[in-house]
Amino acid sequence: MTAAELLDSLVFDRDGLIPAIAQQHDSGEVLMLAWMNRAAIDETLSTGRVCYWSRSRKSLWRKGETSGQVQRLVEFRVDCDNDCLLLLVDQKGVACHTGRRNCFFTAIRDGKAETIAEVVVDPAKLYGA
Amino acid sequence: MTAAELLDSLVFDRDGLIPAIAQQHDSGEVLMLAWMNRAAIDETLSTGRVCYWSRSRKSLWRKGETSGQVQRLVEFRVDCDNDCLLLLVDQKGVACHTGRRNCFFTAIRDGKAETIAEVVVDPAKLYGA
Repeated sequence: MTAAELLDSLVFDRDGLIPAIAQQHDSGEVLMLAWMNRAAIDETLSTGRVCYWSRSRKSLWRKGETSGQVQRLVEFRVDCDNDCLLLLVDQKGVACHTGRRNCFFTAIRDGKAETIAEVVVDPAKLYGA
Repeated sequence: MTAAELLDSLVFDRDGLIPAIAQQHDSGEVLMLAWMNRAAIDETLSTGRVCYWSRSRKSLWRKGETSGQVQRLVEFRVDCDNDCLLLLVDQKGVACHTGRRNCFFTAIRDGKAETIAEVVVDPAKLYGA
């Protein structure tokens, strides 16, 4: 199958979106989950820089455009139902807008919600507050 | 914050669902993405065995109930927006209904869609065909 045929077989939800998991290609760290539409997928594959769809801003979201924390695409994978993407990426700096390396920094441990990762970059520096 | 307060702050979509990424706790392999409602979350946390919501069957989906390929919960994590879950699990056997270890076995390489993982368990054996 060609890549184009695979992309044409993707299953988007009623908003035209598909969830995309970003995973650091070498460490295996799960960085974030975001959403893509077909235009975001096409741009990501053609540029090699990950572009999502921002559901809040309702526009293409070129990850790192403001913060500099870009994701270079290493490999684009599709799941068995064609309704979820796994992006192996090389994350520059931090993936999370809180300045943490990844977005999954709250864990349930012993009945409590614990913060398990430190802020490594001041968000004010990322977004020029 | 208590675990209960964290769970009450989760953001579900208009169908009452939240996406959940399952990751093998020790290897870091991303196994699958599925969906949970509040009942599936509560059952997963109380039993330590992962239970999703099946969107196709519209019922609780106790992963491995038919196939035996259960997921034991190792840690339950929530992302910065409270709208995605990361489940660290210990996957018995294979996660994918195709008999592959994980669901993300199709990759775009050199303009082609390539199958990059082998079937390790015959699906007929998993589902008693």
